[in-house]
Amino acid sequence: MPMIERQDTGAVARLTLNSPERLNALSDDMLTALADHLAALSEDQGIRAVILAGAGKVFCAGHDLKEMTAGRAAEDGGQAYFRDLFNRCGAVMMAIRALPQPVIAQAHGIATAAGCQLVASCDMAVAAEGTRFGVNGVNIGLFCSTPMVALSRNVPRKQAFEMLTTGAFIDTARACELGLINRAVPAEALEAETMALAQTVAEKLAGAVRIGKRAFYEQLEMPLEQAYLHTGDVMTRNMMMENTAEGIAAFLDKRKPEWTQ
Amino acid sequence: MPMIERQDTGAVARLTLNSPERLNALSDDMLTALADHLAALSEDQGIRAVILAGAGKVFCAGHDLKEMTAGRAAEDGGQAYFRDLFNRCGAVMMAIRALPQPVIAQAHGIATAAGCQLVASCDMAVAAEGTRFGVNGVNIGLFCSTPMVALSRNVPRKQAFEMLTTGAFIDTARACELGLINRAVPAEALEAETMALAQTVAEKLAGAVRIGKRAFYEQLEMPLEQAYLHTGDVMTRNMMMENTAEGIAAFLDKRKPEWTQ
Amino acid sequence: MPMIERQDTGAVARLTLNSPERLNALSDDMLTALADHLAALSEDQGIRAVILAGAGKVFCAGHDLKEMTAGRAAEDGGQAYFRDLFNRCGAVMMAIRALPQPVIAQAHGIATAAGCQLVASCDMAVAAEGTRFGVNGVNIGLFCSTPMVALSRNVPRKQAFEMLTTGAFIDTARACELGLINRAVPAEALEAETMALAQTVAEKLAGAVRIGKRAFYEQLEMPLEQAYLHTGDVMTRNMMMENTAEGIAAFLDKRKPEWTQ
Repeated sequence: MPMIERQDTGAVARLTLNSPERLNALSDDMLTALADHLAALSEDQGIRAVILAGAGKVFCAGHDLKEMTAGRAAEDGGQAYFRDLFNRCGAVMMAIRALPQPVIAQAHGIATAAGCQLVASCDMAVAAEGTRFGVNGVNIGLFCSTPMVALSRNVPRKQAFEMLTTGAFIDTARACELGLINRAVPAEALEAETMALAQTVAEKLAGAVRIGKRAFYEQLEMPLEQAYLHTGDVMTRNMMMENTAEGIAAFLDKRKPEWTQ
Repeated sequence: MPMIERQDTGAVARLTLNSPERLNALSDDMLTALADHLAALSEDQGIRAVILAGAGKVFCAGHDLKEMTAGRAAEDGGQAYFRDLFNRCGAVMMAIRALPQPVIAQAHGIATAAGCQLVASCDMAVAAEGTRFGVNGVNIGLFCSTPMVALSRNVPRKQAFEMLTTGAFIDTARACELGLINRAVPAEALEAETMALAQTVAEKLAGAVRIGKRAFYEQLEMPLEQAYLHTGDVMTRNMMMENTAEGIAAFLDKRKPEWTQ
Repeated sequence: MPMIERQDTGAVARLTLNSPERLNALSDDMLTALADHLAALSEDQGIRAVILAGAGKVFCAGHDLKEMTAGRAAEDGGQAYFRDLFNRCGAVMMAIRALPQPVIAQAHGIATAAGCQLVASCDMAVAAEGTRFGVNGVNIGLFCSTPMVALSRNVPRKQAFEMLTTGAFIDTARACELGLINRAVPAEALEAETMALAQTVAEKLAGAVRIGKRAFYEQLEMPLEQAYLHTGDVMTRNMMMENTAEGIAAFLDKRKPEWTQ
C-alpha cells in the first residue's frame, strides 16, 4: 500500500493520505510521499485542481510521535533530526502554496496539530460537519509553533492564540466563522461537494489561475504600492494570453469561450 | 453628461459614477474623471467626507472590456496600453486611500471585478440589500489580480481565494460577515443611511480625522514597535491642535466643543 | 490604596486597575504601576497566566484627560510630556505582548480609547455581556491613533476604521464577531470564567507556552519562509525540553505527564 493514493478525475487530482491505522500522521514516509506527489503535480499540465483528503476515520492527526520519540536515540538527543523534520514539513506546506494548481483540503473526523496546519495551508478547505480542528500540542508540552504559521494566516489572532494555548478543539461552525475553512457539508456529501468545487476551479483557464494564485500570495506580503505594481504586471501578462483574448471576445459575443487547454 | 457627477451636501461630497448604460465601467474616461475629482477633493477644505456611488442599475461592473479589446489593435497587441491602464486604475484606488477625507462606497446592484475593488478600496462601505459582489474575471480567463490587492486586505484569505478562483458572487450578508462592507440596508434607505454615516464622520474635527486616516494605513504596514513610535508622534501632533484642546476642555466641562472648521 | 492590586491564585496572577473613581484611567501613576507589575511578573517563575481586570463600574476609560490638560501648562504647551506619555503607554502595551505568560483581559462596563487598546493588546479577552467597546477620542478631536495600532491587529480594517471615525461603541456580540474578544459571558460569571480560562492555560507546560507566545507574535510579522525557518528552530528547542519528552512519553503511554514546574 502506498502512503498516498492519487486518483485523477478529468483535470482534478485527488491525493489521499493513506495510513489510516496511524491516523494519517505526517511521518517521514508520508512527508516524502506528499513532497513527491506535489512535485509531480507541479509539472502535470493536465491537472488544474488538487484535492487533499485522508483515508479512514480522520483527516490527519499531525506528526508521528512514535517516530519522533525514536529519533531521540541519536547522539544529539534527536536535535538534528527534529530540525530536519520541521524543515521538511514546512517545505511541504510551502509546496502546497507554491503549487500552480489550487489545492483544496477535504477534511473529516479530526485535523489536529500539523493536520490542522495542512488544512490551513491549502488554498481552500471543505469539511464534513462534525470535524474537529485543533492545535493541541500544548497539551503534551509541545507548542504548535510551526502549525501556527499557517493557522495565524487564516484565523484572527486572539482566536488563534486561544486555540494554541488552551489546546481546545473547534467545530466546523466555528472554523467557518474564523475563516479556517470555506464551508462545512454533511459527511455523506463531503466527497461530492469538494469535487464540485475542484471542478468549478478546473473549468477556468489554467494559465490565468496559475499566475493568479502565485500573485495572490506574493502581493499579500507586499506594501500596497508594490502590490499594485506587481499585480499590474501580472494582469498585463494575463491580457496577452491568447485564451484570454478569446475569453473576453466570447463574453462580448455572449457565447462560450473556446479555450485550448 | 459628465462621467462623474459631484453633489455637495454641507461638508459631504457625493461622487456618482454616471455611465449607467455601460454599467459605470472604469473606462479611460471614467478613470480620468475619478482621478480629477479625487485630486480636487484632496484640496477642498470644505469637504470632510466623501461618498462614492453609481448611477443606474449597478454600482460598477469593472473595466470596460470593449475599450480594452480595442486596445489590442496597437502594434504591441495592447501590452503598453494595458500596463498603463492597470497603473492608472491602481493609482485611483491608492488615491482613495490617500484622500484626506474618509471615503464611503454606496453600493447597489452589482460590484464586480474592478467595481468590487472600488468597494474594497474605500475606507468604509454601505450596500443595498441584494447587492452582489464578485471578482469574476476568472470566468473569462482574466484573473482579478489587481482587484485582489484591495479584496485581500478586507477579506480573510481562504474566502478571498474562493471568490477569485470560482468567480462566484457573494451577497450582502456574506459581504458583512467577511468584512468587505460595513453594513447592508434596505435599498430605499441606502442613500439616506450612507449620507447619515458620512455626516457623522463630517461632524468630527477634520484635522484629527485627516492625520488619523493617514496614520491608520501607514501603521498597518509597520511592525508593532515602529507603529507605536509613529502613531505616538501623530497623537502628539493631534494634542497640539487648538481645536483638540478645545474639544478636551469642552468634554471636561460637559459642553459641546466650539470648533473653528 | 495602590493603583493596582495583585492577587495570586495558584499559578494565576490577577492585576486589578484600582482607581474606580477615575474610571481606571491610564494616568501617569497607573501606567507606572502597570509597568512595574508587568516587570515583576516577567521574572516570576511561579506565575503561568495573568488576568488584567478593572475595579468599579468600568474596565478602563482610557487616558486621564485632566492630567493631560494640566500638562499643557508646560513651556512647550505639553508637547514633550505628551510624546513621553504616548511612548510610556505604548511601552506598557508592548510589555503585555512581551510578557512570557499569556495575559487575559477581563473586561466589563466600558473599555474605551486606551482602555480598548488594553483589551486589544492582551493575548485573549473575556467580557461581561453588556460591556461596550469604543475608540471614541475622535468625538473630542483626538483621533485614537495609538489605540488603533492594537485594534487594527485584532479587527478587520473597514470595521476598525468605522469605530475610529464615528466614535461609536460596539457591544459584546459585535466584539466577538470582529475578533476583539474571545467570548462574552454573563456578568456574574465573568470572574470565574476568566479564571477558568487562565487556569486552563496555567496547567500547560510553562516553558512551551513561553517560547510559543513569543514566536507567535514574531512570526506574524515575517514573510512565510522566514516564519517557517524561525518556528522550526523554536519547535526543535521545544522538543529538547525534558518536560516535553515526558509529555510525549506520557501521551504515548496514555497517562498524565509528570512535569517539574
